Amino acid sequence: MTRPIQRPAAQALGRHVLLELYQCPVELLKAGNELEGFLKAAAERMGATVVTSNFHQFSPYGISGVVIIQESHLTLHTWPEHQYAAVDIFTCGEIDLQAGIEHLIQVFQAETADWKLYERGKGL
Amino acid sequence: MTRPIQRPAAQALGRHVLLELYQCPVELLKAGNELEGFLKAAAERMGATVVTSNFHQFSPYGISGVVIIQESHLTLHTWPEHQYAAVDIFTCGEIDLQAGIEHLIQVFQAETADWKLYERGKGL
Repeated sequence: MTRPIQRPAAQALGRHVLLELYQCPVELLKAGNELEGFLKAAAERMGATVVTSNFHQFSPYGISGVVIIQESHLTLHTWPEHQYAAVDIFTCGEIDLQAGIEHLIQVFQAETADWKLYERGKGL
Repeated sequence: MTRPIQRPAAQALGRHVLLELYQCPVELLKAGNELEGFLKAAAERMGATVVTSNFHQFSPYGISGVVIIQESHLTLHTWPEHQYAAVDIFTCGEIDLQAGIEHLIQVFQAETADWKLYERGKGL
């Protein structure tokens, strides 16, 4: 599940990871406080600095949340009914994305996961 | 600057747009309150429902912000020194992404813009 991160070309300003977490435990994807902790812990593992966070619980279930880091952001949306969580990590700094991705796959207990890295600001 | 949005295949749970806004006015990219208004207005144009928002001003300049919508989120990061803003729009609902993209390109006064649409949750 781990592959080396391809660094973007020198001209890209940021890196943006879209991470798909499948077959996660249903109850876990409803636990807002725990999930907020997961994202903050991932930020720390990457060496990022947390600025602020904001999580929202939908009715009857499903969590949307964001952690703004000094290096940009992490966001999360969960669909317990699909055992699915969507994460994205945007960074303009020299942080360890791979450590964050591996941590999230582990704590979300995802049976399968997929992620892609995109460059941002390539047109500069 | 406008192209028709390709709808994702039926099995995708969400749509995620990564929008690059280049050559925007420097002072505009420092104006946090105004930018928060831009993102909320874009949400309204798309027919999305704003749940909460959170914007942060960095020193000496640069804004990071998120608007959580019922259909998922919009995020923004600005680099006034590069006249560049990075936006992403994640939605799981039937909202009008194109209206939001066109609105953002216009209000940010971007001389050039580029965006790509990605499907989320394709593995379900």
